[in-house]
Amino acid sequence: MPYPEKFQGVGISNAEDWKHPTLVTFDPKPFCDHDVDIEIEACGICGSDFHIAAGNWGPVPKNQVLGHEIIGRVVKVGPKCHTGIKLGDRVGVGAQALACLECERCKSDNEQYCTIDHVLTMWTPYKDGYIAQGGFASHVRLHEHFAIPIPENIPSPLAAPLLCGGITVFSPLLRNGCGPGKKVGIVGIGGIGHMGILLAKAMGAEVYAFSRGHSKKEDSMRLGADHYIATLEDKDWTEKYFTTLDLLVVCSSSLSEVNFDSVIKVMKIGGSIVSIAAPEHGEKLVLQPLGLMGVSISSSAIGSRKEIEQLLKLVSEKNVKIWVEELPISGAGVHQAFTRMEKGDVKYRFTLVDYDKEFHK
Amino acid sequence: MPYPEKFQGVGISNAEDWKHPTLVTFDPKPFCDHDVDIEIEACGICGSDFHIAAGNWGPVPKNQVLGHEIIGRVVKVGPKCHTGIKLGDRVGVGAQALACLECERCKSDNEQYCTIDHVLTMWTPYKDGYIAQGGFASHVRLHEHFAIPIPENIPSPLAAPLLCGGITVFSPLLRNGCGPGKKVGIVGIGGIGHMGILLAKAMGAEVYAFSRGHSKKEDSMRLGADHYIATLEDKDWTEKYFTTLDLLVVCSSSLSEVNFDSVIKVMKIGGSIVSIAAPEHGEKLVLQPLGLMGVSISSSAIGSRKEIEQLLKLVSEKNVKIWVEELPISGAGVHQAFTRMEKGDVKYRFTLVDYDKEFHK
Repeated sequence: MPYPEKFQGVGISNAEDWKHPTLVTFDPKPFCDHDVDIEIEACGICGSDFHIAAGNWGPVPKNQVLGHEIIGRVVKVGPKCHTGIKLGDRVGVGAQALACLECERCKSDNEQYCTIDHVLTMWTPYKDGYIAQGGFASHVRLHEHFAIPIPENIPSPLAAPLLCGGITVFSPLLRNGCGPGKKVGIVGIGGIGHMGILLAKAMGAEVYAFSRGHSKKEDSMRLGADHYIATLEDKDWTEKYFTTLDLLVVCSSSLSEVNFDSVIKVMKIGGSIVSIAAPEHGEKLVLQPLGLMGVSISSSAIGSRKEIEQLLKLVSEKNVKIWVEELPISGAGVHQAFTRMEKGDVKYRFTLVDYDKEFHK
Repeated sequence: MPYPEKFQGVGISNAEDWKHPTLVTFDPKPFCDHDVDIEIEACGICGSDFHIAAGNWGPVPKNQVLGHEIIGRVVKVGPKCHTGIKLGDRVGVGAQALACLECERCKSDNEQYCTIDHVLTMWTPYKDGYIAQGGFASHVRLHEHFAIPIPENIPSPLAAPLLCGGITVFSPLLRNGCGPGKKVGIVGIGGIGHMGILLAKAMGAEVYAFSRGHSKKEDSMRLGADHYIATLEDKDWTEKYFTTLDLLVVCSSSLSEVNFDSVIKVMKIGGSIVSIAAPEHGEKLVLQPLGLMGVSISSSAIGSRKEIEQLLKLVSEKNVKIWVEELPISGAGVHQAFTRMEKGDVKYRFTLVDYDKEFHK
C-alpha cells in the first residue's frame, strides 16, 4: 500500500446532523522532526468525544474527526525521535498530542497541565492553526512523546480505553496513595468508574463503589468492589461509613449528581476527594467551607506519559480486563455508539475496531 | 487565698451592649475525675471571641465569658488524671475543652474533628447543658487532655495566642509538609497570618506573603517573608509566580477577600490550598472545577494536642517571637480590644494580662 498523502476518517461533516458522521478525507498536519505516523487499528469512544460531537463544548469544525483512545502501528518515524519508538511498534495515544516539554510542569511529569503549548489529540488547534484530527481515522500523526508502547498481552480493543478513560482515573489513584491498606471510593459507575474499580482493586485497595441507585450493584461487585453504596436509596450510609475513606474519586458525568455535603462525611480526616468530572455548561462546585474540614478536594485531568506507562504495566502484570463492547469503525458504527451513549446504554466502554475493512483495504 | 467555689470573669452581661463587658461571677462546671482547674494569668483575644461577642455566630448567653487562648497555673488535679499534669504546672488551653478521646478521629490525633463529644472552651454546651466559660476569667476548669505544658522560655503573653491562632495556622503547615525546600504562601497578614509567616519561616520554608495592598509589606518582611505580593495592586503577579507554591494557607477573615481563580495559578501541580478562614454568614466557596486542576483545597480548624505540643517545641527551640500588644484584663481592657479589633487596629495580637490585679488579689 503506498504511503498516504491524505488520511481518511469518520468525521462530523454536518454539525447539525452530528449523530451521522461520514467518511471524510483530510490533510494531516505538517510532519515535524519529532513526529510519528500511526496506522490505527482500534479507538475507544470517550464521553468527551460525545460532548464535542454534540457541540456541548463549543463549535465543531467541518469534517472534525474525533477519537482520542488510539491503538495502532508506527509507520513513519521522524528524524529526531529519541524515545526509542520504531517502525512497526504497537503504540497507544490518549487525549494529548503536544506539550512544550520544557516548562516546570512538563519537566516534573505534569505535561498534561502544560500551559505553554498544549494540544489535544483532536478538536484543538496547533500553533499554525491546524485543528487536530483524532482516531476515528486511518492514521494519526503526532509528537512521539504521546505515542506510548503497549505491552504485548493487552489486546488492542482493551488497551484503547486505558489511554484516556483509564489514565484519567488512574492518575488520581496513583497520586493519592491508592494501595494496600487504603480504603478508596469510586463515585459514578460508568465507563471511567468501572475502570476505577478494577484499577483500585488491582492496586491493592479496599474499594467502595458509589452510585445513586442499586442498578450498578451486581456489576460493581463483579468488577471487584468490596462495598456498594446507593446514595439515593440506602439509608444512613453517611453514618455507617462515617470517617472511612482515604480517597474518593468522583467519576460522575456531572458534578450536580454528587452531594458533596454527604460524601465528605465518609472521608477520613486528611482524606482526599478528587473529581475527574468534566463540568457541563460552566457548572461550578459550591462548597460550605466548614463542611470541608480536614478533607481536601481537587480536580484532575488525564495523566502524564510516565503515568500511562505505569498504568499499562499494572494492567499487563495484573491481567486487568476492562469491559469493552466492540463496534465497527464506520459512519454507522459511530452513529450507533453516539445514539447508545445518549441513552446511557454502554457497559462500559465502546472500542471501534475493523479498521482494516474501512481504511486499510 | 481560699479555693474558690465560684469563678469570676469579664462577661457579656448585656448582649445589646456587647462592647462593654462587665465583671461577673459564675459557677464552674461540675468537677470530673479527669478535670483540672487552672488559675489564669494571661489570655489572648482571637477573632472568634469578637465574632461571638458581636452575635455574628448566634445568640450570646447571659454573662458569657469569652477567651480561649489561656495560660495559667494548675491549682487542682482530678483523681484520674494521667497525662502527668500536676499542681503548679504552667499550662495552655486553646479553643477545645473536650472530645470523646475514643473514636477513630480522636485516636488518630484528630480530636479537634471529634463529632461524638466536642466542646469548645467557651460558648458551647457540655452534655449536661452547662455552657463553657472561657479565659477572660479568674479560673478555667476542663479535661486535662486540653491543658498542655508550656515550655519555660516562652513568656505567657507570647504563649497565649499560640493556643488558638498559632495552632490554627501551624496544623495545616505541618500536615502539608512545610519545611526546607518548600515554597509556602500565607494569604492575609493579620493576627493569624503574621504567626503563619513566623512559623513557616521557623520550619525552614521560603515564605510568600499575600495581602490586598502594600500596607503590610514592611511588617511582612520584618516577620521574615521572602516575597510579598499585593494581589490588588501588583501587576502580573499570577504570571510572575505561576506554578510556584507547594502550599498556600488562607488566613483572611473572609473567603470573599480571596480570588481563588487567581491564587490557583501560583500553585504547583500537586500543591495544596488550605483555608482557615471561618466564613461569615454562611459564606460559601464557589469553585470552577477545571480551574482547580491538579491543586487541592481544604479547610482546617485548630489542631490536636500533639500538634500543639509540636508547635510549642518549635517556638521554644527556635525562639519565635510573635507580635503581641498587652492589655489589662478588665471590662475596660476587653472593651478597648473589641473596639480596636472592629477597626482592624491590631498589630498583630492582643493578650490580656494583669490577672492578679483583677482577680487574684
